[in-house]
Amino acid sequence: MKRVLFVGRFQPFHLGHYDAIKKLLGKYDEVIIVIGSAENSLTSDNPLTTGERIDLIRSCLSEEELSRVLLVPIRDINSNSVWVAHLLSYLPSFEAVYTNNDLVKFLFEKHSKFNIIGGFHKKELYNATRIRELIKNGDPSWKACVPKEAVRFLESIRILDRLVRILN
Amino acid sequence: MKRVLFVGRFQPFHLGHYDAIKKLLGKYDEVIIVIGSAENSLTSDNPLTTGERIDLIRSCLSEEELSRVLLVPIRDINSNSVWVAHLLSYLPSFEAVYTNNDLVKFLFEKHSKFNIIGGFHKKELYNATRIRELIKNGDPSWKACVPKEAVRFLESIRILDRLVRILN
Amino acid sequence: MKRVLFVGRFQPFHLGHYDAIKKLLGKYDEVIIVIGSAENSLTSDNPLTTGERIDLIRSCLSEEELSRVLLVPIRDINSNSVWVAHLLSYLPSFEAVYTNNDLVKFLFEKHSKFNIIGGFHKKELYNATRIRELIKNGDPSWKACVPKEAVRFLESIRILDRLVRILN
Amino acid sequence: MKRVLFVGRFQPFHLGHYDAIKKLLGKYDEVIIVIGSAENSLTSDNPLTTGERIDLIRSCLSEEELSRVLLVPIRDINSNSVWVAHLLSYLPSFEAVYTNNDLVKFLFEKHSKFNIIGGFHKKELYNATRIRELIKNGDPSWKACVPKEAVRFLESIRILDRLVRILN
Amino acid sequence: MKRVLFVGRFQPFHLGHYDAIKKLLGKYDEVIIVIGSAENSLTSDNPLTTGERIDLIRSCLSEEELSRVLLVPIRDINSNSVWVAHLLSYLPSFEAVYTNNDLVKFLFEKHSKFNIIGGFHKKELYNATRIRELIKNGDPSWKACVPKEAVRFLESIRILDRLVRILN
Amino acid sequence: MKRVLFVGRFQPFHLGHYDAIKKLLGKYDEVIIVIGSAENSLTSDNPLTTGERIDLIRSCLSEEELSRVLLVPIRDINSNSVWVAHLLSYLPSFEAVYTNNDLVKFLFEKHSKFNIIGGFHKKELYNATRIRELIKNGDPSWKACVPKEAVRFLESIRILDRLVRILN
Repeated sequence: MKRVLFVGRFQPFHLGHYDAIKKLLGKYDEVIIVIGSAENSLTSDNPLTTGERIDLIRSCLSEEELSRVLLVPIRDINSNSVWVAHLLSYLPSFEAVYTNNDLVKFLFEKHSKFNIIGGFHKKELYNATRIRELIKNGDPSWKACVPKEAVRFLESIRILDRLVRILN
Repeated sequence: MKRVLFVGRFQPFHLGHYDAIKKLLGKYDEVIIVIGSAENSLTSDNPLTTGERIDLIRSCLSEEELSRVLLVPIRDINSNSVWVAHLLSYLPSFEAVYTNNDLVKFLFEKHSKFNIIGGFHKKELYNATRIRELIKNGDPSWKACVPKEAVRFLESIRILDRLVRILN
Repeated sequence: MKRVLFVGRFQPFHLGHYDAIKKLLGKYDEVIIVIGSAENSLTSDNPLTTGERIDLIRSCLSEEELSRVLLVPIRDINSNSVWVAHLLSYLPSFEAVYTNNDLVKFLFEKHSKFNIIGGFHKKELYNATRIRELIKNGDPSWKACVPKEAVRFLESIRILDRLVRILN
Repeated sequence: MKRVLFVGRFQPFHLGHYDAIKKLLGKYDEVIIVIGSAENSLTSDNPLTTGERIDLIRSCLSEEELSRVLLVPIRDINSNSVWVAHLLSYLPSFEAVYTNNDLVKFLFEKHSKFNIIGGFHKKELYNATRIRELIKNGDPSWKACVPKEAVRFLESIRILDRLVRILN
Repeated sequence: MKRVLFVGRFQPFHLGHYDAIKKLLGKYDEVIIVIGSAENSLTSDNPLTTGERIDLIRSCLSEEELSRVLLVPIRDINSNSVWVAHLLSYLPSFEAVYTNNDLVKFLFEKHSKFNIIGGFHKKELYNATRIRELIKNGDPSWKACVPKEAVRFLESIRILDRLVRILN
Repeated sequence: MKRVLFVGRFQPFHLGHYDAIKKLLGKYDEVIIVIGSAENSLTSDNPLTTGERIDLIRSCLSEEELSRVLLVPIRDINSNSVWVAHLLSYLPSFEAVYTNNDLVKFLFEKHSKFNIIGGFHKKELYNATRIRELIKNGDPSWKACVPKEAVRFLESIRILDRLVRILN
């Protein structure tokens, strides 16, 4: 059984994440998705709760995919030196780490021997910070950046209203 | 989509847990399993890490079951008054809570309106504290208390050796 | 017995707070004042300790008011999803929440059924951030923004000297 | 203005506490009551929330007493060396500490110059641990150990039911 | 430069610790002494502060030894899975771990590749728990269990008085 | 035995720190160096771990100096009111505090009676923030700001590469 790790905050889950997971599922038996900053929610940078992020990501995956994707929420700790050990205590065994984040790559290289891969998803195209800005400004073009089911989910929790009220 | 919540520590996962999940999967679309005390590990009461508990539980479930079971590790917080709110922030939406634990029942009754059900699994028969004792004492009868795949997993991580060394 | 809740940081207590409390005491039997960010002190944003804030607020109230005002210091927690539950565990029963803060309003609407009222105090006129700026800059006009007893108290702890030294 | 400090957990508030406060109010202008272990609640040793303890204590005091008693909930910290400094940051100025607890006395002697007084209340007669035991066992003699208003309050929150369910 | 690690709580520092350090200094260039449970103090199990433990240990060492012994206080964290990473972030480079503790050995074996050595000091003879008991009971035989300078230091801070008052 | 306290973060240790320690060693028997923010590391403001800072500082000192310098790492706490008490619980006895930092001076004046001295090291000349900037920008002039042994140590851990990767 070959598993790969994918760490993100998914505020919100977008097509960049989605494409990366699709590609990883093509190469690995299972994908472990760490939902980072699990205890932050209802803030401008972290508008969704962890529970909502689980609902959101699951709503975008097929039944077959659901059986091969592991969602593991993990809270932040305030010490980068301990972060990899913290993650490993929460995670089932895996073989490789997929990341586009320089710090994540640095920490896994320094504190583990995992194979680290990257490069799939298009940062310029899909960017959660920009998507939150678009939503808050009432610009409907955000809907082209996330899977269709994600649009439905985010509208059902009235994300625009939430972002406006939290951000004020 | 009807979901039910099941909270446990799974130190280790045993046939009582397994039977309860089977029965819950017969009545609900999905079962959310909270892996409690997620940050405790490698102690006498919590010998397994959260990652190992995820591996252990998943190894006992079929592919179809895996697509309908959500494993959500959650750390303890030191305030019972806040515990339900803490849990809810980590959990996707659900309809009912399954529990045999008096305190869990009390807290959900006090701080939520969820339907609470109980009574399935046989506490006298399958008990994690007793199973840890049997393993530590080298009594092989523990193997009759957990699913076959769990025996394999626990032996692969040399659980006897671990318990003896941690408990000393 | 009808009680209303009023949440603030009171860094420092000013005429806006004072007027709101007066008005709330006209409509309710008792006012519960949460002194927020209770563990932050001696910083640029939180120059006063919680003890000083208690002394400061009490010095501005009459004996009759003191018997009907409850001061409850509560520390911040780093999870907005749990904040209302955290507050409720510290607070005696009450009926309504008075607030001018969008996030406080959002969180109480999302996680409780309390009646939420607002609108009394004049944000443009009395603003703690601006008052701290005035004090630090040695501009005596801050004295017109706080009750007379507050001027006396803040001068007695040499607030100007403190702000200058903390802020450097 | 002369104030005295009185530290307790008040699980529950009993006649020993009540008598001490009465006597302290005879000698001092105001009594500051620290409600300790503020974040612990709904456990066997700490069945009441902080909010309930505030309600409970206030229900036993007259209006005149209410204007001269300050209730300050403070959470525990896990370092005795820092405990007095932690308390002082939460407390308005005071002159003396009333306590019957050896550790509290030791820590205030070691880390402050406050006058420390003691000896009032009768530990053998009124003891919160014993009162919780009596309640849990359904022994009505606990009602003679607390003020009448406290009986009413504790019955209104169904304390017997709570203790039985929490303690199981 | 060859360094060895020695982890202890040193409540108090005794001849067993002293002998081990002497022997380690004979084999290694420097000894790193972790003063564990650094934030616990003034309790029955941890009567000394970290500062006192530093004073105590240093008072027993010669100038030459002082230049080759590194004292590093480290607080506990509540996760054994992360403990080694936590320690490593506080520690300068070293080659071997000296320990007589089964859990410490288990954790270093599981989470590092350090050489682990043990066996020097005589647990039956010198035992901090027993020494604290002797002191508390006023039995002067504890003085034969610690270096002479340690007797002087512990008497200077009136350890008997402290233990009696803390333990009550 | 006369000891002086010197608090810093040493990210990295530079000639300003070095000169101050030399001067303090001329006036006091021993210098206690608190390595602050001990749990922060591998971030843009705190690139070095505490262990690396210990190695770095020790590598710059002679054997004689090593026997008279005490390195004590202490983590931050998020309450300035408690900071001095927190420090004191970690520190052996001392007589004076050396600092150029206004807040440190303010807190020691408010919460202790130590003699506070300052003024030695040249803030304009040697500044850790500026040194980190120089390193990150590949400007070799940083090497003139730290002791020679520090250059060697920082190059051996590839500080430029680390800063670039962490800061991105």
